[in-house]
Amino acid sequence: MTTQSPLVVIVGGGFGGLAAAKELRCSCVKVLLIDRSNHHVFQPLLYQVATSVLAPGQIASPIRSLLAKQANTSVMLGNVTGVDATSKHVIVDANDKVGLRIGYDYLILATGANHSYFGHDEFAAFAPGLKSLADAEALRNHILEVFEKAEIEDDPERRQALMTFVMVGAGPTGVEIASAIAVMARTSLRHDFRRVDPASAHIVLVDLGVRPLAGFSEKLSKAAMRRLTELGVDVRLGVAVQVIDEEGVVIGSERVRAKTIIWTAGVKPSPAGEWLGTLVDHTGRVRIRTDLTVSENPNIFVVGDTASLDQDGSALPGVAQVAIQQGKYAAMSILRRVRGHSPLPRFRYFDKGNLAVVGRNFAVLQSAGVQLSGFMAWLIWAFIHIQFLAEASLRFSVFLQWMWTYISGKRAERLIIRQRIND
Amino acid sequence: MTTQSPLVVIVGGGFGGLAAAKELRCSCVKVLLIDRSNHHVFQPLLYQVATSVLAPGQIASPIRSLLAKQANTSVMLGNVTGVDATSKHVIVDANDKVGLRIGYDYLILATGANHSYFGHDEFAAFAPGLKSLADAEALRNHILEVFEKAEIEDDPERRQALMTFVMVGAGPTGVEIASAIAVMARTSLRHDFRRVDPASAHIVLVDLGVRPLAGFSEKLSKAAMRRLTELGVDVRLGVAVQVIDEEGVVIGSERVRAKTIIWTAGVKPSPAGEWLGTLVDHTGRVRIRTDLTVSENPNIFVVGDTASLDQDGSALPGVAQVAIQQGKYAAMSILRRVRGHSPLPRFRYFDKGNLAVVGRNFAVLQSAGVQLSGFMAWLIWAFIHIQFLAEASLRFSVFLQWMWTYISGKRAERLIIRQRIND
Repeated sequence: MTTQSPLVVIVGGGFGGLAAAKELRCSCVKVLLIDRSNHHVFQPLLYQVATSVLAPGQIASPIRSLLAKQANTSVMLGNVTGVDATSKHVIVDANDKVGLRIGYDYLILATGANHSYFGHDEFAAFAPGLKSLADAEALRNHILEVFEKAEIEDDPERRQALMTFVMVGAGPTGVEIASAIAVMARTSLRHDFRRVDPASAHIVLVDLGVRPLAGFSEKLSKAAMRRLTELGVDVRLGVAVQVIDEEGVVIGSERVRAKTIIWTAGVKPSPAGEWLGTLVDHTGRVRIRTDLTVSENPNIFVVGDTASLDQDGSALPGVAQVAIQQGKYAAMSILRRVRGHSPLPRFRYFDKGNLAVVGRNFAVLQSAGVQLSGFMAWLIWAFIHIQFLAEASLRFSVFLQWMWTYISGKRAERLIIRQRIND
Repeated sequence: MTTQSPLVVIVGGGFGGLAAAKELRCSCVKVLLIDRSNHHVFQPLLYQVATSVLAPGQIASPIRSLLAKQANTSVMLGNVTGVDATSKHVIVDANDKVGLRIGYDYLILATGANHSYFGHDEFAAFAPGLKSLADAEALRNHILEVFEKAEIEDDPERRQALMTFVMVGAGPTGVEIASAIAVMARTSLRHDFRRVDPASAHIVLVDLGVRPLAGFSEKLSKAAMRRLTELGVDVRLGVAVQVIDEEGVVIGSERVRAKTIIWTAGVKPSPAGEWLGTLVDHTGRVRIRTDLTVSENPNIFVVGDTASLDQDGSALPGVAQVAIQQGKYAAMSILRRVRGHSPLPRFRYFDKGNLAVVGRNFAVLQSAGVQLSGFMAWLIWAFIHIQFLAEASLRFSVFLQWMWTYISGKRAERLIIRQRIND
């Protein structure tokens, strides 16, 4: 705390890590942000990359250029594999070197979460999730390819399996991607095929719960449900997916043949808990104190999807706003300590509200007692999402792209690009 | 020729195949276009995808949507593996089925070309070329990654190897990519790194010939040479690359350590010649007659980079304009035959001119006696390339992107996205 320039190491360039790094600009600390990928992704719009509306570059920015003007901040492309809390080092694989040790004075772990198959890891091969740009591109390739294959498939049963899309999980991601596929099949693709009719695609949304968008009020769930039905989405509620294999899924006791299955039902946190050997909750997230540090070590902060903190009796949700507010808090907390100021009051999440989009012209919004569904909510959704993109140029570019897609009904990014493996 | 609706099968959705398909619109023939990829790529701008200026979606369009309004035309995603000229069938792998047979009345082979390593196929693993969007994305990932690795490399010699880029071949592609990397390192990346200076990148352009852009006049070659030198590109002429391996290259007798080597020195045609068992030239291109058919079979046309035709004593070059004009000619020729009209006069290539860009604000232009180098040529280059993009929306989007890159000096597409292999 009395060092000239304490080094703050941030692991992860998602919403939490980036918010922390930005909060530490123009300060007396040095910052090193380490991420496995060279870019920050605006995850709420990943589904639009998967459905050919936006290009990967429109929702992602190089972390290095986002932080280029912060002279006190370095960025490192590397994969953190552990933390040595005793000697204050993170362990990193980078640049073909395994196990590099990097010392820190303060550590912020913002390592996020990945898909969880709840013990059914065999599902993963057939039901990918949507967490990274690589996930989104793979899904885009796949969705475009099944229509291509259906066009030249003679066997009606196999053709139907190619035209069947099953989303497991009716949270915001599941609802958004199901409705986006429905809109794509019924508008953009409609006239491009000669033998199959893309509009006959069968889109199934399954959830164990009794309503879609369970994080919203019952009224908004009902509105979303009506809209999904209008879009022709086949919503199956209160029923479990028993099997996922090459042929499709078993929903309850019914087998549905499908060549596209998308998993949005659950997430598992990064292994930060294992690195620290500290207390975790039932899903594996690190139990943090109300100052966002772990009990054994006040110099280690854990924020975002990989952290577990209760507020008013329930766990904070794994959403961008929590990660951003926690990242900022951790950074401010470190700066106060470095300057010898009194600690911040405990962290409080301020819930600005919740939004989910259901196809074209329709979203649901819930914020501070306000409940709204329909076109106005959709405009607000579009406005807020554009505003939160990391760079002004992306805001402009996404705005134009949306206008164009809205007016023309076309999709700008209908490209199947398969990278070769040997690179 | 007396059938109700003769079927024209076009293999390849590049410049030649697409031009042929479009020429056949609103006619009495049915058209089936088969391509391995779902998109048409505007190859002259691939290098801008490789250097993070443009997104893949900005230079590519789904073939299916380009031809959506031609009711007589179907599109098939498939990989042609052979031709049975006797029974008039093409053999296609598509939709997990191997060896599908598709009958045709007329066949247009527009199957293009790939890289040629002139017998040194062992070079391929270390010196990729630039022919597809997948190539361009892989190269973009690689170029961004070597800078990231250099930033954390302590060994000075290894750091220099990471910052060294060798382009083999000083034709338009080699010159364009060398100068684009130079501009990128010296502008966009300049301030984003803390330990290495991207501006110190060593960019080497090698050619066996005595001047760059040998397809242009000597005067323009000299202008390009001066510009390359101003950009700091190390041009090595009249010297052969003897070895390409993991460590770098051997140029003449000098070993240059480099982690990035790009092959633009030669192309080899598609195996159309083997499929047909017909006469080929020394590079393997199908020798065609002046009506673009092969001697054994007047119903088979071969166009573009995979065809070999002399005009006024020299072989036509493998450029987009030749492919486009040949594709149109083949289509017109078929329509005349179907209608029972007299044959067209022999094919004549009309050379509209040649352009190559050398970094920012500078291009060379040679057209009908006009020779121009510098800013004006660059503006003309930009104007013509935008004009030739396949869709109006792409023209608008590329125009905006260029303006933005020009003004801000930033690159919109600095993303390392590695697809997982198991998809």
